[in-house]
Amino acid sequence: MPPDDLYKFDRSETLMARARKVIPGGIYGHKSPVLLVPGAYPSFMARGEGCRIWDVDGNQYIDFMCSYGPIVLGHKHPRVEEAAAAERSRGDSYNLPGEVWVELAELLVDITPAADWVVFAKNGSDVTSWSLAVARAHTRRNKAIMAAGAYHGAHPWCSPIPTGITDADRANVLTFRYNDLDDLRRVVAENRGDIAGLILCPFRHDAFHDEEMPAPGFHQGVREICDEEGIVLVLDDIRAGFRLHLGGSGEVLGLRPDLICYCKAIANGYALAAGLGREELRQAALGVFFTGTFWTATVPMAAAIATINTLREEGGIEQMEAMGSRFRQGLDQQTRSLGLAINQTGPPAVPFMTFDADQGSFERSRLFCGECCRRGVFVHPIHNWFLSAAHTEADIDEALTVTEVAFRIVKEHFGS
Amino acid sequence: MPPDDLYKFDRSETLMARARKVIPGGIYGHKSPVLLVPGAYPSFMARGEGCRIWDVDGNQYIDFMCSYGPIVLGHKHPRVEEAAAAERSRGDSYNLPGEVWVELAELLVDITPAADWVVFAKNGSDVTSWSLAVARAHTRRNKAIMAAGAYHGAHPWCSPIPTGITDADRANVLTFRYNDLDDLRRVVAENRGDIAGLILCPFRHDAFHDEEMPAPGFHQGVREICDEEGIVLVLDDIRAGFRLHLGGSGEVLGLRPDLICYCKAIANGYALAAGLGREELRQAALGVFFTGTFWTATVPMAAAIATINTLREEGGIEQMEAMGSRFRQGLDQQTRSLGLAINQTGPPAVPFMTFDADQGSFERSRLFCGECCRRGVFVHPIHNWFLSAAHTEADIDEALTVTEVAFRIVKEHFGS
Repeated sequence: MPPDDLYKFDRSETLMARARKVIPGGIYGHKSPVLLVPGAYPSFMARGEGCRIWDVDGNQYIDFMCSYGPIVLGHKHPRVEEAAAAERSRGDSYNLPGEVWVELAELLVDITPAADWVVFAKNGSDVTSWSLAVARAHTRRNKAIMAAGAYHGAHPWCSPIPTGITDADRANVLTFRYNDLDDLRRVVAENRGDIAGLILCPFRHDAFHDEEMPAPGFHQGVREICDEEGIVLVLDDIRAGFRLHLGGSGEVLGLRPDLICYCKAIANGYALAAGLGREELRQAALGVFFTGTFWTATVPMAAAIATINTLREEGGIEQMEAMGSRFRQGLDQQTRSLGLAINQTGPPAVPFMTFDADQGSFERSRLFCGECCRRGVFVHPIHNWFLSAAHTEADIDEALTVTEVAFRIVKEHFGS
Repeated sequence: MPPDDLYKFDRSETLMARARKVIPGGIYGHKSPVLLVPGAYPSFMARGEGCRIWDVDGNQYIDFMCSYGPIVLGHKHPRVEEAAAAERSRGDSYNLPGEVWVELAELLVDITPAADWVVFAKNGSDVTSWSLAVARAHTRRNKAIMAAGAYHGAHPWCSPIPTGITDADRANVLTFRYNDLDDLRRVVAENRGDIAGLILCPFRHDAFHDEEMPAPGFHQGVREICDEEGIVLVLDDIRAGFRLHLGGSGEVLGLRPDLICYCKAIANGYALAAGLGREELRQAALGVFFTGTFWTATVPMAAAIATINTLREEGGIEQMEAMGSRFRQGLDQQTRSLGLAINQTGPPAVPFMTFDADQGSFERSRLFCGECCRRGVFVHPIHNWFLSAAHTEADIDEALTVTEVAFRIVKEHFGS
């Protein structure tokens, strides 16, 4: 394909120049262009439909990031949009919640074996921080354990960048090596009687790393340690929730948590987070002050009910697993025939791919992802990808025609 | 009015019984029914239009809480809904921001004398906590000062209830008495060189208190102290923003802050928060990690642009001040003729009223507000009220026919 046919980003660049004047960095946080490939990605999006997105220059992409997770049924899913629009026609934010507050809580409790009650919020960070407060209120202890390098949000206790954060903010946070029960036992022994909660993602999905599934016996061992030590076990299912199992990713990975944190995919893109808990923790949750301006908004709750029911009734989980597997097999075949060694990790619905020869440099990943993006496939060089239930076999096969070209370019450029 | 004509809340009570099973407390946070009057208020809302809201039993209210602030133009304002729907028809949450990300930032910088750049988030707490991180990054100091009793959000450093919060979370937070420059100077002197930021609301609007405007010279003195000591001055304009002045409440109250925090009314109910800053703080803001799943969503930004432009073009600020003053005058006349002593405080657009004879018990306030609510006027016994630009003279006068009845009941019950 001659370079002239590749996507151009003139409008994106114009907007980015304007953005840099009035916003520090132009775009900050996890969507910052510094995490993508300069010149090979757009900076601004214009619309979405199913698994397709269009940038402000009119370039079309098959979307394998799904807005970093929220879009689980595809952009503008008709059933979700109808439910949201019906609620919106009456209003959204009032002095009190609406009927959907109760209906969504009942639905979540109904589909979640590990939960008896629910609270709602807006951000993932809202519920991960809240989960530790509940653990502290329940145990009357102060410390929390997390896996080193795991992402649990942008609050001071867990932010991946320490600028503007004090030592006191992290004074009660301990870390252990993921999948290492001996290391966890060591940390627990060194802080016996002081640990309120352990927060854990259903599998390792840190940026800049291959994904790592829980080792055999790891989740069982974590549960045993928490039970023995009276530690509240929190599942941070914000990134993977509603892509592996509707009752929480712990259901397919052998983990029965005390609290579950949801956000991203719960309402197919509408802003909502949820914290779910076992009966024993209800009293502690009652005591914790937890509130925000928009937390009773009805439209995202109506969207969440429609999202969950659609996933359940239309086999969305199975569709994501099947299409993620098809994509994975295609990438595998293409690289084997080219003699490129790749490592595909994580569940098929939340996949990631790195090049063995990069040895952590992400050089080939950046070239590959950039060449994909300029040809209409939006994947990410350093962050896991996401499937949606809107991806069809035809979409996957079309994406694979692009990845084939991108792999050839990697081969030509790097040799291996 | 005979008791049979008073509002009944059967459907609300049925829903609340269901809610209590699946949500700790049924409703938590600032909308918890324990802050209202048992039996005299609904628990669930069904729809809104202009300054009117309807609960799930079909009872109609003139809304003087405006969803605790967000509804500044009235529920379902046509211009805001049209802008949001147009954006929604294309999508909302993508892998990158949309064009409105830039347009809204430019608009905010344009209308805000104290700001050169903007960041966006979802909750008020997101931006108040962020403002202290920016202050810390800028000054390389750790401590923050706030007025004792002020509400800056629900995060551990500022939550009004300490359950589940550790001493370390508050180790770097100092307090001073609002409106007391000598007390502020004392705290600063005791922590000289350690104070990164001072966060201040434009006037005192703590729950359970009369509002208190800044004393003459207070804001000027605060600015001088911050300049002398190299302290970053943060205006927490979350509750009052866009009701006193479009360029920040500091503009009418003689305060020129370094950072401004907005949330509630910025998008007439759509979930959005914003942090604004001066040029000197841009570099510090660049270094602070700040992100969230839904923070680039385009629909709330389109709604914010429409909200701000409508307020500006249709004189919304003036309308709220005029209608708040009309309501205040009416309450004043009614109580004077009945011989009830009340204290009306705060700006007319963000007013509050207490009974002198209550002496902080809020007994009369609870009776008064409950009797208003059961007759179709939604006011709050312990939290400040809010006007919207949708309130007309006819609405105010209709509300006053209800307050007259409620004041008479207070007089009959308490005698004074």
